[in-house]
Amino acid sequence: MDFILENLWLVSLLAAVIALVFVALQAKKVLAEDEGTDLMKRISQNVRKGAGAFLSRQYKTVGIFFICMVIIIAVMAALGLLSWYVPFAFLTGGLFSGLSGFIGMKIATNSNARTAAAAQKSLNKGLRVAFSAGTVMGFTVVGLGLLDISIWYVLLTKVFKETLEVTTSTMITFGMGASSMALFARVGGGIFTKAADVGADLVGKVEAGIPEDDPRNPAAIADNVGDNVGDVAGMGADLYESYVGSLLSTCALGVVAFNGIPEIKAVNAVALPLIMAAIGVICSLIGSFLVKTKENATQKALLGALSRGTNFAAIVTAVLSLLAVLWLLPGHFGVYIAILAGLVAGVAIGKVTEYYTSDTYKPTQNLSESSKTGTATLIISGLSLGMMSTLLPILIVGAAVIIAYFCAQIGVQGSNPSLGLYGISISAVGMLSTLGITLATDAYGPVADNAGGIAEMAGLPEEVRERTDALDSLGNTTAATGKGFAIGSAALTALALIANFVEKMEVNGATPSLSLMDPKVLVGIFVGAMLPFLFSAMTMSAVGRAAQSVVVEVRRQFKEIKGLLEGKPGVEADYAKCVDLCSKSSLKEMIAPAIVGIASPIIVGVILGGSGVIGLLCGATASGFIMAVFMSNSGGAWDNAKKYIEAGHFGGKGSENHKAAVVGDTIGDPFKDTSGPSINILIKLMSMVSIVFAGLIAKCNWF
Amino acid sequence: MDFILENLWLVSLLAAVIALVFVALQAKKVLAEDEGTDLMKRISQNVRKGAGAFLSRQYKTVGIFFICMVIIIAVMAALGLLSWYVPFAFLTGGLFSGLSGFIGMKIATNSNARTAAAAQKSLNKGLRVAFSAGTVMGFTVVGLGLLDISIWYVLLTKVFKETLEVTTSTMITFGMGASSMALFARVGGGIFTKAADVGADLVGKVEAGIPEDDPRNPAAIADNVGDNVGDVAGMGADLYESYVGSLLSTCALGVVAFNGIPEIKAVNAVALPLIMAAIGVICSLIGSFLVKTKENATQKALLGALSRGTNFAAIVTAVLSLLAVLWLLPGHFGVYIAILAGLVAGVAIGKVTEYYTSDTYKPTQNLSESSKTGTATLIISGLSLGMMSTLLPILIVGAAVIIAYFCAQIGVQGSNPSLGLYGISISAVGMLSTLGITLATDAYGPVADNAGGIAEMAGLPEEVRERTDALDSLGNTTAATGKGFAIGSAALTALALIANFVEKMEVNGATPSLSLMDPKVLVGIFVGAMLPFLFSAMTMSAVGRAAQSVVVEVRRQFKEIKGLLEGKPGVEADYAKCVDLCSKSSLKEMIAPAIVGIASPIIVGVILGGSGVIGLLCGATASGFIMAVFMSNSGGAWDNAKKYIEAGHFGGKGSENHKAAVVGDTIGDPFKDTSGPSINILIKLMSMVSIVFAGLIAKCNWF
Repeated sequence: MDFILENLWLVSLLAAVIALVFVALQAKKVLAEDEGTDLMKRISQNVRKGAGAFLSRQYKTVGIFFICMVIIIAVMAALGLLSWYVPFAFLTGGLFSGLSGFIGMKIATNSNARTAAAAQKSLNKGLRVAFSAGTVMGFTVVGLGLLDISIWYVLLTKVFKETLEVTTSTMITFGMGASSMALFARVGGGIFTKAADVGADLVGKVEAGIPEDDPRNPAAIADNVGDNVGDVAGMGADLYESYVGSLLSTCALGVVAFNGIPEIKAVNAVALPLIMAAIGVICSLIGSFLVKTKENATQKALLGALSRGTNFAAIVTAVLSLLAVLWLLPGHFGVYIAILAGLVAGVAIGKVTEYYTSDTYKPTQNLSESSKTGTATLIISGLSLGMMSTLLPILIVGAAVIIAYFCAQIGVQGSNPSLGLYGISISAVGMLSTLGITLATDAYGPVADNAGGIAEMAGLPEEVRERTDALDSLGNTTAATGKGFAIGSAALTALALIANFVEKMEVNGATPSLSLMDPKVLVGIFVGAMLPFLFSAMTMSAVGRAAQSVVVEVRRQFKEIKGLLEGKPGVEADYAKCVDLCSKSSLKEMIAPAIVGIASPIIVGVILGGSGVIGLLCGATASGFIMAVFMSNSGGAWDNAKKYIEAGHFGGKGSENHKAAVVGDTIGDPFKDTSGPSINILIKLMSMVSIVFAGLIAKCNWF
Repeated sequence: MDFILENLWLVSLLAAVIALVFVALQAKKVLAEDEGTDLMKRISQNVRKGAGAFLSRQYKTVGIFFICMVIIIAVMAALGLLSWYVPFAFLTGGLFSGLSGFIGMKIATNSNARTAAAAQKSLNKGLRVAFSAGTVMGFTVVGLGLLDISIWYVLLTKVFKETLEVTTSTMITFGMGASSMALFARVGGGIFTKAADVGADLVGKVEAGIPEDDPRNPAAIADNVGDNVGDVAGMGADLYESYVGSLLSTCALGVVAFNGIPEIKAVNAVALPLIMAAIGVICSLIGSFLVKTKENATQKALLGALSRGTNFAAIVTAVLSLLAVLWLLPGHFGVYIAILAGLVAGVAIGKVTEYYTSDTYKPTQNLSESSKTGTATLIISGLSLGMMSTLLPILIVGAAVIIAYFCAQIGVQGSNPSLGLYGISISAVGMLSTLGITLATDAYGPVADNAGGIAEMAGLPEEVRERTDALDSLGNTTAATGKGFAIGSAALTALALIANFVEKMEVNGATPSLSLMDPKVLVGIFVGAMLPFLFSAMTMSAVGRAAQSVVVEVRRQFKEIKGLLEGKPGVEADYAKCVDLCSKSSLKEMIAPAIVGIASPIIVGVILGGSGVIGLLCGATASGFIMAVFMSNSGGAWDNAKKYIEAGHFGGKGSENHKAAVVGDTIGDPFKDTSGPSINILIKLMSMVSIVFAGLIAKCNWF
């Protein structure tokens, strides 16, 4: 047992290796599948080329940013404001986060045509290919995260012989690299995907009256590329960041929490999250094998198959985590309750998301109905649905925080706030421990979506398109659950990171006031609460501008390329032009919002000091969580309200009601796929930046 | 001098009497004007009857609520949780707030036809009548507020011989009565006005294609009634509440702040806000006489005339306040800087509001242009405009808070947080001291709007309608400035009230944690930040439901009343039915949001104790302020973007672009006239409730 605790890096390395070997096997399996007709291959290749081109350009732009940041951080290190490990930790965090997105995107773009081809045979075969692609993504994120942790852990403890405290508090700074990369990926990819989508829809569906994914639409390929760079690469980088962020902040808080409790060694507190992660990898792996069903199963059976996998992983991880708590933290059973609180909260938020956004429930059905009195009432109803849907997630997270904080302290004499904060942090680990499989079910969605696009463009028979639609719709449900975990874990992780920042300030010799009656704290809260609004405004208007340029280009092609709109054989749209346009504008537009996220804690810190920053982070976390839920749910509900009408309710496709619903869906696009999810990263990134710049902020204490 | 300080109630009584005598004279002057043709008289009478009927029913409903609350408060008094003065103070607050709204509404409904009649002669004459009606409203609010303060002040200090500390901390509780009344008035009136407006527009303008305010529209009278019950009665109660709230919280904080400073008597700190209020009344009064201009002046000249009045009042009040500070608080010149900070912040927020919502600036012009690519892009642009517009107001208020807090402490040895909080509170007084005239320029808007409606319905010549339109448009600009003051003062007053709550907790023997690392505080912030979203969702969907019922009724009348739509002479719509419908639904719909506002601090207080409540209030104030700015500005910008297109830009009236803009305007209606302004009251009401229930909350300290 002691061997394990002394060589914790081996545990995470082993888990990382298992995850990555599984990734390689799954990838090989997917790539062995048939890719369909020549046309399908060509389309898929176009998407692949477009996505690859975008990513390589994005990485170049981001590379420049990373070089600038490393220089700044290195200067700070030279000034003694932080340790020399930080610049390197920052770099590896960014590198691995980007790599997660890249690998996920590679496999996704290689399996879209294969999913469509498999769906020709049966619904189930299609599911298997898409889900396998999803598992590649899920386990890549988990594997690379644990690999990065192992490398740094062994370097710091064994090579540089640092103490556990320095090790954990250094490691947390590589989260900033991951967060920065994630923000660029989410915002850039989010703008790309929605500019292409909105642009394609506005001219194609609304003006020219051709169906979605029609090959005549010059933005059709760009739309498919967008699904990959936004939903896959962006999501991969995002969850990589949540995953390592929650693990690292728990480790760092654990060292502090058990400082005054002699019967538990600090290393045990550090071991718990890492061992839970290892358990989670193995359970997720076994769970993924349970995702199988009979040929030609109903959609409900398919959903059942997916749930079987995720439920197995969650339950077994929960049981084994109990053993881990009993072994590592004897007498602190309450910590286990904190873990469970996180797990339950994640599931509950997912259920609430599903309730508000799925058309099998009243809210979205009523939203569809409100289209009867026109576009305006549909928009008002959608906005108020999203705002209303923030109530329960807030109460759920609030309850989880209270339970985790107080239960973690059970069995301790008096109160031990650090232990309470450790409880909050480990509840996020509880939520994310089975990320391998939950992310797989989530990442499978965009693959299915793309498969549908390829089926349409390649002119596959109607029944194939029906199957890919069924897969896509199943993806919407799993995406709702996935979102619950992403948003819930972001809030809990951000709170844990704020606690780490307070810790860091103290290490740097500053004791900022945390009191709400301190005007610096209050103003910090005000400014922080405003940032998600500013950030959303910037990303939404960026999508508007980028979509505008796509609209102009698509109109131009329809006008100038003779025979394109009529579908004359041999006439092909200039897809590459649209992809190129989306790339350029999204890369240009992602800079400003990213700078807001990174610069604001530093500016506030320099002016108002640590108190202002803590207020800023709390305000941004609260309002950011709420805005993320609001925007994601409004957007999701509009999307499904439109699909509900298309399924034949309230007048069906082509009716006035449907037109209103299309407007709603278009407004919802940047809500749910650009602004909403980016806010999750924003709040974590701001906390990470504050932690890295704590040394500087501690020096700023003017009044 | 000492006589004044010993009989402060005489100062406020004198100011109250001056204000109310001025009200009576102005009212007499307005009522002496000609009311126009018989048709105009009849229309005006219909509006008056409708508004009167709604208000009396509203007061009945609210009366039941007040009886329930008084019983609850009395039980608490019997249990020793608060003083026996509170139930009575609560009642008078509600009574006077309601009375302010009632008198404002009375004069407004009596001067709409008179304004239209005067506009027949000249633009200037129309302005004078409408502005005089506005002054009645403005000075009623100020006069009644000061009267209520005087009565309680003399009762408590002279009759019951209470100390200054008990007096000021008792008086603040009558703010809860005022806030409750204001919330009902704003929410009820806001739902009424927008249900009528949206309902009238959806069937009239969009379906039947008849112009706004067309007499054939059965909801036309209800629409005009709505302007009065929402924008006039609602706004009156709202600002009554801000005005007394800021005065009373400053008095209460003043007693505490100068506790440890022997050279200044506490009564001086109490006297400052009251004397500033008295100065403000007199300067506003003189300023209102300066609002005159040449016959047939241009619109710019009219705006100049209005500004001359408000600027004179503001500048002279600022100068005289300096003397008051030098006399009352010698050696504390910094308090004067705090006052100026408030004044400047109010003006600056007004300017920002104007920049983002007036069509003479880029943002609204660009918004109009975004209608070119359809409704969806117009909505996205409007939402992002509103979100973007939160940045500057937040920075302005933040700067004002920091300046007020730290400058107020200049000249004090060490730091004195109470004095800093007194500084924040008195900056709100600085903002509101000239409320008499700023509210007059604001309240004049709905009167002009109504006059336009009557001119249209009575078939007055086109040039009269043009004049009333010019008056209405001028009203939009002054309303922007008014909103700046309303929102800014709400935020500052709420912060001052939170400080009072902390004080009250200590008086009740509780010392709740104020630390951001306390999970109760954090969860409080989360829940508080969510409430404005929940509240907006409730009020918006209430408008949706109420408008729905109006749509159904208007459609029914068009179908069943033969010849109505064709405009056959002698055929008249059943206006009363629509008024009745709006009344019923808005009264029903106002209950739930009001309960959310009142119950949430109590529920959170019982579960999480004082720490949770303080978090709740800070979270709600921050996110509420931002939501109020966002919703008001999005709504205002959509409104003016539509008007900009109607003025002939981007295709003009009847174009596809115009249709998109009408949808935007309809969505903006509940944003800017129901949800947005109600949030201002919500955040103050929650603070007031917390103060009243402090005794109960102090007892709840489970963990």
